Amino acid sequence: MARNEPQRLRATIQAVKELILDQGLQPGDPLPTEAQLVDLLDVSRGNLREAVRTLVALDILEVRHGTGTFVGQMSLRPLVEGLGFRGVVLPGEDFQSLRQIVEVRSGLDHALADAVVERMDDAVAVELKALCDAMAEHSERNEAFAAEDRAFHLALASMLGNELYSELVAAFWDVHTRLAPRLGVPTPRDIADTVAAHRAMLDAAVSRDLEGYRAAVGNHYAPLLRVLDSTSTTG
Amino acid sequence: MARNEPQRLRATIQAVKELILDQGLQPGDPLPTEAQLVDLLDVSRGNLREAVRTLVALDILEVRHGTGTFVGQMSLRPLVEGLGFRGVVLPGEDFQSLRQIVEVRSGLDHALADAVVERMDDAVAVELKALCDAMAEHSERNEAFAAEDRAFHLALASMLGNELYSELVAAFWDVHTRLAPRLGVPTPRDIADTVAAHRAMLDAAVSRDLEGYRAAVGNHYAPLLRVLDSTSTTG
Repeated sequence: MARNEPQRLRATIQAVKELILDQGLQPGDPLPTEAQLVDLLDVSRGNLREAVRTLVALDILEVRHGTGTFVGQMSLRPLVEGLGFRGVVLPGEDFQSLRQIVEVRSGLDHALADAVVERMDDAVAVELKALCDAMAEHSERNEAFAAEDRAFHLALASMLGNELYSELVAAFWDVHTRLAPRLGVPTPRDIADTVAAHRAMLDAAVSRDLEGYRAAVGNHYAPLLRVLDSTSTTG
Repeated sequence: MARNEPQRLRATIQAVKELILDQGLQPGDPLPTEAQLVDLLDVSRGNLREAVRTLVALDILEVRHGTGTFVGQMSLRPLVEGLGFRGVVLPGEDFQSLRQIVEVRSGLDHALADAVVERMDDAVAVELKALCDAMAEHSERNEAFAAEDRAFHLALASMLGNELYSELVAAFWDVHTRLAPRLGVPTPRDIADTVAAHRAMLDAAVSRDLEGYRAAVGNHYAPLLRVLDSTSTTG
């Protein structure tokens, strides 16, 4: 390989990004064909393909085979993929990597407290109550309730009206949920507490009780952190 | 291109990840050579290169030219790169993308309040005071103080003892700092307020004044959000 390949690759990546900006392309818009890009950017086909592969990994581009290359959604998918793998490669002592992820989730939920308590309204309260009821039913039948749990946290995050914040909440929920079974972390035995903790968050928000809401967020994450402690001492 | 290339590529990416796990490789460890990997994983050279390129983009692998391929640091660099570009491609109305990033920064700092106020000690207080003094000196000379600002927020984040949280704080600081000039957002005219806001955060933490600390965090981000408002109405 040429010694200057990294610089050339970086330059090609930069050139593709500038083309997206110059042409005002938006997510979902098609890029010129590979042959056109080779001409336009004056790069080799191999170099272009490596640049495209890099940008696909970052969700900046999307290749639909048989159709072409498009501007990607620029989602947080690379974050989920990277942290998910890092958590397995570097689990750390006592599930440290998973504990860090749970603490980030807790931090993101805590930081929502003001907005949630201030903006809670009947429509959201009804939606959250239905999710809590569904969780309770699943819990009684010893079933998991991942979908309801995710929807609950996303409904709270959406009250901030900040799409990026919601994506972060979803991303760390996803990493947490995928990593826990891979690391062999058991489901908390006190899973019923988790159901009750969601309802306590809802009740505190409806009562506009800021300190009560913060306490409920703390109680929500307590069993998730406790199971990491108990696992580390018995394993 | 073969129609089944995406699946084959995904399978090769997965195979490289499993090899890292099976061999217990850690960040910085060398991978087998390209020729060995082609044999070991029974894949084509082109396919392997695309997989490596994807994993390099995610910082799961690192290619040092002339040396070989190594396990990467699995940092949040892909997040910074992705969000930085997304903020330029999708600036939104009224700098919406930058506003969302500033709000995430604010949320991350707010969520640290309990840990910072509880754990503030003389050593950290001295470090933060020196940073505030340096910011004030720069501000008086009409100089920027990005390095001190970043160090201040990272010193606070480090009090949680959660490396991932610190990386997130750094990542959103980096995206914010790179994006603002690219979007043509002026430096807040009330930059002296920002210096004072850092000092207020420190003072409240030293006094173990939780509500005062939260208010100071709010005041810290106020000029940064205000400049987005004023820009959107005058521009």
